[in-house]
Amino acid sequence: MSNSTSSSSLEKQLVLDADEDSYGGVTVNMEKPMDSKVFTSVLRTSLSYWRQQGKRGVWIKLPIHLANLVEPTVQEGFRYHHAEPDYLMLVYWIPKTSDTIPTNSSHRIGVCAFVLNDKREVLVVKERSGQFGGTDVWKFPTGVAEEGEDIWTAAIREVKEETGVDTEFVEVLAFRQSHRAFFGKSDLMFVCMLRPCSSDIRKQDSEIEAAQWMAAEDYAAQSFVREHEQFNYVAKICLTKSEKAYAGFSPIQALSSSGKINDLYFNHRDCDLSADQNQ
Amino acid sequence: MSNSTSSSSLEKQLVLDADEDSYGGVTVNMEKPMDSKVFTSVLRTSLSYWRQQGKRGVWIKLPIHLANLVEPTVQEGFRYHHAEPDYLMLVYWIPKTSDTIPTNSSHRIGVCAFVLNDKREVLVVKERSGQFGGTDVWKFPTGVAEEGEDIWTAAIREVKEETGVDTEFVEVLAFRQSHRAFFGKSDLMFVCMLRPCSSDIRKQDSEIEAAQWMAAEDYAAQSFVREHEQFNYVAKICLTKSEKAYAGFSPIQALSSSGKINDLYFNHRDCDLSADQNQ
Repeated sequence: MSNSTSSSSLEKQLVLDADEDSYGGVTVNMEKPMDSKVFTSVLRTSLSYWRQQGKRGVWIKLPIHLANLVEPTVQEGFRYHHAEPDYLMLVYWIPKTSDTIPTNSSHRIGVCAFVLNDKREVLVVKERSGQFGGTDVWKFPTGVAEEGEDIWTAAIREVKEETGVDTEFVEVLAFRQSHRAFFGKSDLMFVCMLRPCSSDIRKQDSEIEAAQWMAAEDYAAQSFVREHEQFNYVAKICLTKSEKAYAGFSPIQALSSSGKINDLYFNHRDCDLSADQNQ
Repeated sequence: MSNSTSSSSLEKQLVLDADEDSYGGVTVNMEKPMDSKVFTSVLRTSLSYWRQQGKRGVWIKLPIHLANLVEPTVQEGFRYHHAEPDYLMLVYWIPKTSDTIPTNSSHRIGVCAFVLNDKREVLVVKERSGQFGGTDVWKFPTGVAEEGEDIWTAAIREVKEETGVDTEFVEVLAFRQSHRAFFGKSDLMFVCMLRPCSSDIRKQDSEIEAAQWMAAEDYAAQSFVREHEQFNYVAKICLTKSEKAYAGFSPIQALSSSGKINDLYFNHRDCDLSADQNQ
């Protein structure tokens, strides 16, 4: 909100400060505390003003210390769009037409690490809690990528955290898409092959009951693995990789048209872009 | 909250109804309106009770019509976890140890469709708005997967919506991970090869300026494609696929250990699971 009390324009004074975007929308980043009744009044004036201006989507970002403004914003017809630990984003669509508000993020990224040493042993763990807590199932280390974390980095980190073993990333061998996985959202789990750079195991006590190196065939022969289709398929893909030529996807860095460096994963064996990369 | 007024246990009466999970957490699904002062009092009693019980994460799901309870929940030390249009989820970690609260969904899923016909022509579009609006660049059809939508379904749907062409899914040829893409969140874009089942183009007017079939080599020869690394790499992978053996990942259905049917994408050429599937 404008702090100027000497403004010549009353209207301007009563309208919330907002950034415009290239889709005809406005975004308000609330930062300073405001009484909820005052906020309601200013928000109503602002909405009238933006409606006159032909604006479409109105975004209001409320940091968590302004939680008192959530209820008044909802009362003016806003809905939630997304939230992070320290803020809530609300949105309102002004036009009578159906909205083109972009969807919230929909997927969590999981990694499942197939770490094979030169004795054909795989690194496996028993988990303390969750679906496999208290069972005899030896599993590949798994985990969830953190906010902004690369798939290959997440795989290396999870193996290190759970077992203490250092690894190098080799390839994505497969991935699985699952819906209604957590809070109704979706999940993409990447099965990653990693090469161990160390062998000593120092397991994480809080989440991991036990960790060991296990003959790859013994892993696949566990009755739980054989009897559960998805585990069985993943085990077969991993064993195929360990026995013969199986081309997965590995990353190279690629500059996007907006100037960002991203990871592009593809089958390097069948398509060699290294000549391009070294130009 | 328990509606029973004849409960013999005062403590039980004052504690919010909650579902327990296998990680030592509890989840409260608030549904009925409650005065915010009453809620604060019951929440404090509940937290004491759960602390005594050794509970860890406490989740409170507030539907948007209970926005009046957001501020009191935050005042008791909760933080936001995630939000959907109609609810806000808050979380509190009771133990003194560092939390193991799962992260919010972090990624949006994009699809980029490489549709090649038997004349070696690709289906391309000119977009009306966004980064490429008003430019001369012919692009593959692209879009964002909807909530709960499969990657292969999203690719078929986007091609149909933008161009009117019916297709069959062939393979994921590559994927790209990008961070800080929208609202600071990440993006995974899957380059999908599709086989056309029809050829007549009926373009979508709202988003698409023009659509056509174009010789694959002419697509790749566009100066924009040649000069932008990511576009250039993707074009080369697609041309490689069109000229010789390039193994991408295609999906099969696999039953998870929790009884759900998921899509598992992998290199079928190098690993044949069809015998397993037909068992």
